[in-house]
Amino acid sequence: MKTQGKKSIAIDMDGVIADVEAQLIKYYEQVYGVKTTKEAIKGLSGADAFPLDAATRTMIYTPGFFRNLEVIPGAVEALTILKDKYELYIVSAATEFPLSLFEKVEWLKEHFPFITWHNIVLCGDKSIIDTDYMIDDHCKNLNFCKGKAIMFDAHHNQNEAGHARFFSWTEILEYFEQEELKFAEASN
Amino acid sequence: MKTQGKKSIAIDMDGVIADVEAQLIKYYEQVYGVKTTKEAIKGLSGADAFPLDAATRTMIYTPGFFRNLEVIPGAVEALTILKDKYELYIVSAATEFPLSLFEKVEWLKEHFPFITWHNIVLCGDKSIIDTDYMIDDHCKNLNFCKGKAIMFDAHHNQNEAGHARFFSWTEILEYFEQEELKFAEASN
Repeated sequence: MKTQGKKSIAIDMDGVIADVEAQLIKYYEQVYGVKTTKEAIKGLSGADAFPLDAATRTMIYTPGFFRNLEVIPGAVEALTILKDKYELYIVSAATEFPLSLFEKVEWLKEHFPFITWHNIVLCGDKSIIDTDYMIDDHCKNLNFCKGKAIMFDAHHNQNEAGHARFFSWTEILEYFEQEELKFAEASN
Repeated sequence: MKTQGKKSIAIDMDGVIADVEAQLIKYYEQVYGVKTTKEAIKGLSGADAFPLDAATRTMIYTPGFFRNLEVIPGAVEALTILKDKYELYIVSAATEFPLSLFEKVEWLKEHFPFITWHNIVLCGDKSIIDTDYMIDDHCKNLNFCKGKAIMFDAHHNQNEAGHARFFSWTEILEYFEQEELKFAEASN
Protein backbone atom coordinates (compact mmCIF):
# COMPACT_ATOMS: atom_id res chain seq x y z
CA MET A 1 0.00 0.00 0.00
CA LYS A 2 1.37 3.41 -0.94
CA THR A 3 2.13 5.08 2.38
CA GLN A 4 1.42 8.74 2.88
CA GLY A 5 4.69 10.63 2.69
CA LYS A 6 6.70 7.68 1.45
CA LYS A 7 7.61 8.04 -2.20
CA SER A 8 7.20 4.99 -4.40
CA ILE A 9 9.66 3.29 -6.75
CA ALA A 10 8.72 0.79 -9.49
CA ILE A 11 11.65 -1.57 -9.93
CA ASP A 12 11.92 -3.80 -12.99
CA MET A 13 13.13 -7.39 -12.59
CA ASP A 14 14.88 -8.65 -15.75
CA GLY A 15 18.08 -6.76 -16.35
CA VAL A 16 17.69 -4.68 -13.19
CA ILE A 17 17.58 -7.05 -10.23
CA ALA A 18 17.60 -10.39 -12.11
CA ASP A 19 20.45 -11.17 -14.48
CA VAL A 20 18.66 -12.43 -17.61
CA GLU A 21 21.63 -11.57 -19.81
CA ALA A 22 23.98 -13.93 -17.92
CA GLN A 23 21.36 -16.69 -18.03
CA LEU A 24 20.81 -16.27 -21.79
CA ILE A 25 24.56 -16.40 -22.43
CA LYS A 26 24.82 -19.57 -20.30
CA TYR A 27 21.82 -21.34 -21.91
CA TYR A 28 22.85 -20.22 -25.39
CA GLU A 29 26.17 -21.96 -25.00
CA GLN A 30 24.81 -25.03 -23.19
CA VAL A 31 21.97 -25.69 -25.62
CA TYR A 32 23.29 -24.36 -28.94
CA GLY A 33 27.06 -24.41 -28.43
CA VAL A 34 27.29 -20.73 -29.34
CA LYS A 35 29.56 -18.85 -26.99
CA THR A 36 29.22 -15.14 -26.36
CA THR A 37 30.02 -12.71 -23.52
CA LYS A 38 28.52 -9.61 -21.93
CA GLU A 39 31.28 -7.56 -23.55
CA ALA A 40 30.62 -9.03 -27.02
CA ILE A 41 26.91 -8.17 -27.01
CA LYS A 42 27.28 -4.62 -25.67
CA GLY A 43 25.40 -2.23 -27.92
CA LEU A 44 23.50 -4.98 -29.68
CA SER A 45 19.73 -5.40 -29.72
CA GLY A 46 18.28 -8.61 -28.27
CA ALA A 47 17.90 -10.03 -31.78
CA ASP A 48 21.50 -9.21 -32.74
CA ALA A 49 22.97 -10.39 -29.44
CA PHE A 50 21.23 -13.76 -29.70
CA PRO A 51 20.59 -14.21 -33.44
CA LEU A 52 18.94 -17.63 -33.11
CA ASP A 53 15.66 -15.91 -32.33
CA ALA A 54 13.51 -19.05 -32.15
CA ALA A 55 16.14 -20.61 -29.91
CA THR A 56 16.13 -17.61 -27.59
CA ARG A 57 12.37 -17.74 -27.33
CA THR A 58 12.55 -21.46 -26.56
CA MET A 59 15.00 -20.76 -23.74
CA ILE A 60 12.79 -18.06 -22.27
CA TYR A 61 9.85 -20.47 -22.27
CA THR A 62 11.87 -23.27 -20.65
CA PRO A 63 10.63 -24.07 -17.12
CA GLY A 64 13.22 -22.92 -14.60
CA PHE A 65 14.69 -20.18 -16.81
CA PHE A 66 13.37 -17.33 -14.63
CA ARG A 67 13.51 -19.28 -11.37
CA ASN A 68 17.27 -19.79 -11.58
CA LEU A 69 18.46 -16.32 -12.54
CA GLU A 70 21.41 -14.81 -10.70
CA VAL A 71 20.76 -11.62 -8.76
CA ILE A 72 22.26 -8.46 -10.27
CA PRO A 73 25.22 -7.47 -8.04
CA GLY A 74 24.29 -5.00 -5.33
CA ALA A 75 20.52 -5.27 -5.84
CA VAL A 76 19.74 -7.01 -2.53
CA GLU A 77 21.85 -4.56 -0.55
CA ALA A 78 20.38 -1.53 -2.36
CA LEU A 79 16.74 -2.59 -1.95
CA THR A 80 17.38 -3.42 1.70
CA ILE A 81 18.45 0.19 2.19
CA LEU A 82 15.79 1.80 -0.03
CA LYS A 83 12.86 -0.12 1.49
CA ASP A 84 13.09 1.85 4.73
CA LYS A 85 12.56 5.20 3.02
CA TYR A 86 10.55 4.26 -0.07
CA GLU A 87 7.59 2.08 -0.97
CA LEU A 88 9.15 -0.43 -3.35
CA TYR A 89 7.13 -2.14 -6.06
CA ILE A 90 8.63 -4.84 -8.21
CA VAL A 91 7.01 -4.29 -11.61
CA SER A 92 7.84 -6.90 -14.23
CA ALA A 93 6.51 -7.18 -17.78
CA ALA A 94 5.87 -10.91 -17.39
CA THR A 95 2.42 -11.79 -18.71
CA GLU A 96 3.92 -12.50 -22.15
CA PHE A 97 5.50 -15.54 -20.48
CA PRO A 98 2.76 -17.11 -18.37
CA LEU A 99 5.03 -19.86 -17.04
CA SER A 100 7.39 -17.24 -15.64
CA LEU A 101 4.74 -15.76 -13.35
CA PHE A 102 4.96 -18.37 -10.59
CA GLU A 103 8.73 -18.60 -10.97
CA LYS A 104 9.15 -14.86 -10.58
CA VAL A 105 7.15 -14.79 -7.35
CA GLU A 106 9.18 -17.72 -5.99
CA TRP A 107 12.44 -16.08 -7.06
CA LEU A 108 11.51 -12.87 -5.25
CA LYS A 109 10.57 -14.85 -2.13
CA GLU A 110 14.04 -16.42 -2.12
CA HIS A 111 16.19 -13.39 -2.89
CA PHE A 112 14.06 -10.45 -1.69
CA PRO A 113 11.97 -11.90 1.16
CA PHE A 114 11.18 -8.39 2.41
CA ILE A 115 9.16 -7.74 -0.76
CA THR A 116 5.71 -9.20 -0.03
CA TRP A 117 3.01 -10.17 -2.52
CA HIS A 118 1.33 -6.81 -1.90
CA ASN A 119 4.17 -5.05 -3.74
CA ILE A 120 4.62 -7.34 -6.74
CA VAL A 121 3.12 -6.34 -10.10
CA LEU A 122 3.33 -8.72 -13.08
CA CYS A 123 2.03 -7.00 -16.15
CA GLY A 124 2.28 -6.46 -19.88
CA ASP A 125 2.86 -2.84 -20.74
CA LYS A 126 3.63 -0.51 -17.83
CA SER A 127 1.85 2.60 -19.03
CA ILE A 128 -0.78 2.48 -16.26
CA ILE A 129 1.81 2.23 -13.49
CA ASP A 130 2.01 5.41 -11.43
CA THR A 131 5.00 5.69 -9.09
CA ASP A 132 7.31 8.53 -8.16
CA TYR A 133 10.32 6.75 -9.70
CA MET A 134 10.75 3.94 -12.20
CA ILE A 135 13.96 1.92 -12.54
CA ASP A 136 14.00 -0.03 -15.80
CA ASP A 137 16.33 -1.01 -18.64
CA HIS A 138 13.70 -0.57 -21.38
CA CYS A 139 12.80 2.85 -22.75
CA LYS A 140 9.42 1.53 -23.89
CA ASN A 141 8.60 1.48 -20.18
CA LEU A 142 10.50 4.58 -19.07
CA ASN A 143 9.06 6.75 -21.87
CA PHE A 144 5.58 6.48 -20.38
CA CYS A 145 6.44 6.59 -16.72
CA LYS A 146 4.78 9.31 -14.73
CA GLY A 147 7.58 9.72 -12.23
CA LYS A 148 11.33 10.14 -12.62
CA ALA A 149 12.98 7.67 -14.99
CA ILE A 150 16.13 5.79 -14.01
CA MET A 151 17.58 3.80 -16.90
CA PHE A 152 19.62 0.77 -15.88
CA ASP A 153 22.45 0.16 -18.33
CA ALA A 154 21.96 -2.88 -20.62
CA HIS A 155 23.44 -4.13 -23.87
CA HIS A 156 20.25 -3.26 -25.75
CA ASN A 157 19.91 0.35 -24.53
CA GLN A 158 23.40 1.64 -25.41
CA ASN A 159 22.02 4.00 -28.05
CA GLU A 160 19.25 5.43 -25.87
CA ALA A 161 20.00 8.93 -24.63
CA GLY A 162 16.60 10.09 -23.40
CA HIS A 163 16.96 9.05 -19.76
CA ALA A 164 19.61 9.29 -17.04
CA ARG A 165 21.75 6.15 -17.30
CA PHE A 166 22.94 4.20 -14.25
CA PHE A 167 25.59 1.51 -14.43
CA SER A 168 25.13 -0.07 -11.03
CA TRP A 169 23.04 -0.19 -7.88
CA THR A 170 25.79 1.78 -6.13
CA GLU A 171 25.15 4.66 -8.53
CA ILE A 172 21.40 4.39 -7.95
CA LEU A 173 21.88 4.57 -4.18
CA GLU A 174 23.99 7.69 -4.65
CA TYR A 175 21.23 9.19 -6.79
CA PHE A 176 18.65 8.64 -4.06
CA GLU A 177 20.98 10.14 -1.47
CA GLN A 178 21.13 13.26 -3.66
CA GLU A 179 17.34 13.23 -4.01
CA GLU A 180 16.96 13.13 -0.23
CA LEU A 181 19.36 16.05 0.19
CA LYS A 182 17.34 18.02 -2.36
CA PHE A 183 14.08 17.29 -0.51
CA ALA A 184 15.67 18.16 2.82
CA GLU A 185 16.85 21.49 1.41
CA ALA A 186 13.51 22.21 -0.20
CA SER A 187 11.65 21.60 3.05
CA ASN A 188 13.97 23.85 5.08
CA MET B 1 -0.42 0.51 -24.47
CA LYS B 2 -2.56 3.47 -23.36
CA THR B 3 -3.71 5.05 -26.59
CA GLN B 4 -3.89 8.80 -26.93
CA GLY B 5 -7.51 9.86 -26.69
CA LYS B 6 -8.76 6.46 -25.58
CA LYS B 7 -9.71 6.42 -21.93
CA SER B 8 -8.58 3.47 -19.86
CA ILE B 9 -10.55 1.12 -17.61
CA ALA B 10 -9.05 -1.20 -14.99
CA ILE B 11 -11.33 -4.22 -14.67
CA ASP B 12 -11.05 -6.58 -11.72
CA MET B 13 -11.37 -10.33 -12.28
CA ASP B 14 -12.74 -12.12 -9.20
CA GLY B 15 -16.31 -11.08 -8.53
CA VAL B 16 -16.45 -8.81 -11.59
CA ILE B 17 -15.79 -10.96 -14.67
CA ALA B 18 -15.01 -14.29 -12.93
CA ASP B 19 -17.58 -15.84 -10.61
CA VAL B 20 -15.52 -16.78 -7.54
CA GLU B 21 -18.60 -16.74 -5.32
CA ALA B 22 -20.32 -19.49 -7.33
CA GLN B 23 -17.13 -21.57 -7.32
CA LEU B 24 -16.68 -21.20 -3.55
CA ILE B 25 -20.28 -22.24 -2.96
CA LYS B 26 -19.80 -25.29 -5.21
CA TYR B 27 -16.46 -26.36 -3.68
CA TYR B 28 -17.71 -25.69 -0.15
CA GLU B 29 -20.54 -28.14 -0.63
CA GLN B 30 -18.48 -30.70 -2.58
CA VAL B 31 -15.56 -30.78 -0.17
CA TYR B 32 -17.13 -29.96 3.22
CA GLY B 33 -20.77 -30.87 2.67
CA VAL B 34 -21.87 -27.40 3.75
CA LYS B 35 -24.55 -26.00 1.49
CA THR B 36 -25.11 -22.31 1.02
CA THR B 37 -26.47 -20.01 -1.70
CA LYS B 38 -25.74 -16.56 -3.14
CA GLU B 39 -28.90 -15.30 -1.44
CA ALA B 40 -27.90 -16.74 1.95
CA ILE B 41 -24.51 -15.01 2.00
CA LYS B 42 -25.71 -11.62 0.83
CA GLY B 43 -24.43 -8.92 3.19
CA LEU B 44 -21.92 -11.24 4.84
CA SER B 45 -18.17 -10.77 4.88
CA GLY B 46 -16.02 -13.45 3.29
CA ALA B 47 -15.28 -14.91 6.74
CA ASP B 48 -18.96 -15.01 7.71
CA ALA B 49 -20.13 -16.36 4.35
CA PHE B 50 -17.64 -19.23 4.46
CA PRO B 51 -16.89 -19.67 8.18
CA LEU B 52 -14.48 -22.57 7.71
CA ASP B 53 -11.70 -20.09 7.03
CA ALA B 54 -8.88 -22.64 6.72
CA ALA B 55 -11.10 -24.67 4.41
CA THR B 56 -11.79 -21.67 2.21
CA ARG B 57 -8.10 -20.88 1.96
CA THR B 58 -7.40 -24.50 1.02
CA MET B 59 -9.97 -24.27 -1.78
CA ILE B 60 -8.47 -21.07 -3.11
CA TYR B 61 -5.03 -22.72 -3.19
CA THR B 62 -6.35 -25.83 -4.96
CA PRO B 63 -4.98 -26.16 -8.52
CA GLY B 64 -7.77 -25.53 -10.99
CA PHE B 65 -9.83 -23.32 -8.69
CA PHE B 66 -9.25 -20.15 -10.71
CA ARG B 67 -8.94 -21.92 -14.06
CA ASN B 68 -12.46 -23.30 -13.89
CA LEU B 69 -14.45 -20.27 -12.79
CA GLU B 70 -17.67 -19.40 -14.56
CA VAL B 71 -17.81 -16.05 -16.36
CA ILE B 72 -20.01 -13.43 -14.71
CA PRO B 73 -23.12 -13.05 -16.91
CA GLY B 74 -22.83 -10.31 -19.49
CA ALA B 75 -19.09 -9.71 -18.97
CA VAL B 76 -17.94 -11.06 -22.35
CA GLU B 77 -20.59 -9.10 -24.23
CA ALA B 78 -19.86 -5.89 -22.29
CA LEU B 79 -16.08 -6.03 -22.71
CA THR B 80 -16.52 -6.81 -26.40
CA ILE B 81 -18.42 -3.54 -26.74
CA LEU B 82 -16.20 -1.47 -24.43
CA LYS B 83 -12.89 -2.55 -26.02
CA ASP B 84 -13.63 -0.54 -29.15
CA LYS B 85 -13.89 2.74 -27.28
CA TYR B 86 -11.68 2.17 -24.24
CA GLU B 87 -8.29 0.72 -23.43
CA LEU B 88 -9.21 -2.21 -21.18
CA TYR B 89 -6.81 -3.51 -18.54
CA ILE B 90 -7.62 -6.60 -16.52
CA VAL B 91 -6.17 -5.85 -13.09
CA SER B 92 -6.35 -8.69 -10.61
CA ALA B 93 -4.98 -8.82 -7.06
CA ALA B 94 -3.47 -12.27 -7.60
CA THR B 95 0.11 -12.36 -6.32
CA GLU B 96 -1.18 -13.56 -2.93
CA PHE B 97 -1.99 -16.81 -4.73
CA PRO B 98 1.03 -17.60 -6.92
CA LEU B 99 -0.54 -20.73 -8.38
CA SER B 100 -3.45 -18.69 -9.67
CA LEU B 101 -1.24 -16.51 -11.88
CA PHE B 102 -0.85 -18.96 -14.76
CA GLU B 103 -4.46 -20.11 -14.41
CA LYS B 104 -5.75 -16.55 -14.63
CA VAL B 105 -3.85 -15.85 -17.84
CA GLU B 106 -5.13 -19.11 -19.34
CA TRP B 107 -8.68 -18.35 -18.21
CA LEU B 108 -8.54 -14.93 -19.86
CA LYS B 109 -7.18 -16.48 -23.07
CA GLU B 110 -10.18 -18.83 -23.17
CA HIS B 111 -12.97 -16.43 -22.27
CA PHE B 112 -11.60 -13.01 -23.34
CA PRO B 113 -9.26 -13.79 -26.24
CA PHE B 114 -9.32 -10.14 -27.33
CA ILE B 115 -7.50 -9.17 -24.10
CA THR B 116 -3.81 -9.76 -24.88
CA TRP B 117 -0.94 -10.17 -22.41
CA HIS B 118 -0.10 -6.47 -22.88
CA ASN B 119 -3.26 -5.54 -20.97
CA ILE B 120 -3.14 -8.00 -18.08
CA VAL B 121 -1.91 -6.84 -14.68
CA LEU B 122 -1.53 -9.33 -11.82
CA CYS B 123 -0.66 -7.51 -8.65
CA GLY B 124 -1.00 -7.21 -4.89
CA ASP B 125 -2.43 -3.88 -3.88
CA LYS B 126 -3.75 -1.67 -6.67
CA SER B 127 -2.74 1.73 -5.34
CA ILE B 128 -0.16 2.37 -8.08
CA ILE B 129 -2.65 1.65 -10.89
CA ASP B 130 -3.60 4.77 -12.79
CA THR B 131 -6.58 4.43 -15.13
CA ASP B 132 -9.51 6.70 -15.95
CA TYR B 133 -11.99 4.20 -14.51
CA MET B 134 -11.75 1.26 -12.14
CA ILE B 135 -14.39 -1.49 -11.91
CA ASP B 136 -13.94 -3.54 -8.74
CA ASP B 137 -15.95 -5.18 -5.98
CA HIS B 138 -13.49 -4.26 -3.20
CA CYS B 139 -13.41 -0.78 -1.67
CA LYS B 140 -9.82 -1.33 -0.56
CA ASN B 141 -9.02 -1.01 -4.27
CA LEU B 142 -11.61 1.60 -5.25
CA ASN B 143 -10.72 3.91 -2.35
CA PHE B 144 -7.28 4.55 -3.82
CA CYS B 145 -8.15 4.63 -7.48
CA LYS B 146 -7.19 7.75 -9.33
CA GLY B 147 -10.03 7.59 -11.84
CA LYS B 148 -13.77 7.11 -11.42
CA ALA B 149 -14.77 4.20 -9.20
CA ILE B 150 -17.41 1.69 -10.27
CA MET B 151 -18.33 -0.73 -7.49
CA PHE B 152 -19.58 -4.10 -8.66
CA ASP B 153 -22.18 -5.48 -6.26
CA ALA B 154 -20.98 -8.41 -4.10
CA HIS B 155 -22.11 -10.14 -0.91
CA HIS B 156 -19.18 -8.63 1.01
CA ASN B 157 -19.72 -4.98 -0.03
CA GLN B 158 -23.40 -4.59 0.89
CA ASN B 159 -22.61 -2.11 3.65
CA GLU B 160 -20.28 0.04 1.55
CA ALA B 161 -21.82 3.32 0.46
CA GLY B 162 -18.81 5.32 -0.69
CA HIS B 163 -18.95 4.38 -4.38
CA ALA B 164 -21.58 4.12 -7.10
CA ARG B 165 -22.93 0.55 -7.00
CA PHE B 166 -23.64 -1.48 -10.14
CA PHE B 167 -25.58 -4.72 -10.10
CA SER B 168 -24.77 -6.00 -13.56
CA TRP B 169 -22.73 -5.46 -16.71
CA THR B 170 -25.88 -4.14 -18.37
CA GLU B 171 -25.92 -1.29 -15.85
CA ILE B 172 -22.21 -0.64 -16.42
CA LEU B 173 -22.74 -0.40 -20.17
CA GLU B 174 -25.54 2.10 -19.58
CA TYR B 175 -23.20 4.13 -17.35
CA PHE B 176 -20.56 4.32 -20.09
CA GLU B 177 -23.20 5.35 -22.62
CA GLN B 178 -24.06 8.23 -20.29
CA GLU B 179 -20.38 9.09 -19.91
CA GLU B 180 -20.00 9.26 -23.69
CA LEU B 181 -23.03 11.53 -23.99
CA LYS B 182 -21.51 13.81 -21.34
CA PHE B 183 -18.20 13.96 -23.20
CA ALA B 184 -19.94 14.59 -26.50
CA GLU B 185 -21.90 17.48 -24.95
CA ALA B 186 -18.80 18.90 -23.29
CA SER B 187 -16.87 18.89 -26.56
CA ASN B 188 -19.66 20.62 -28.50
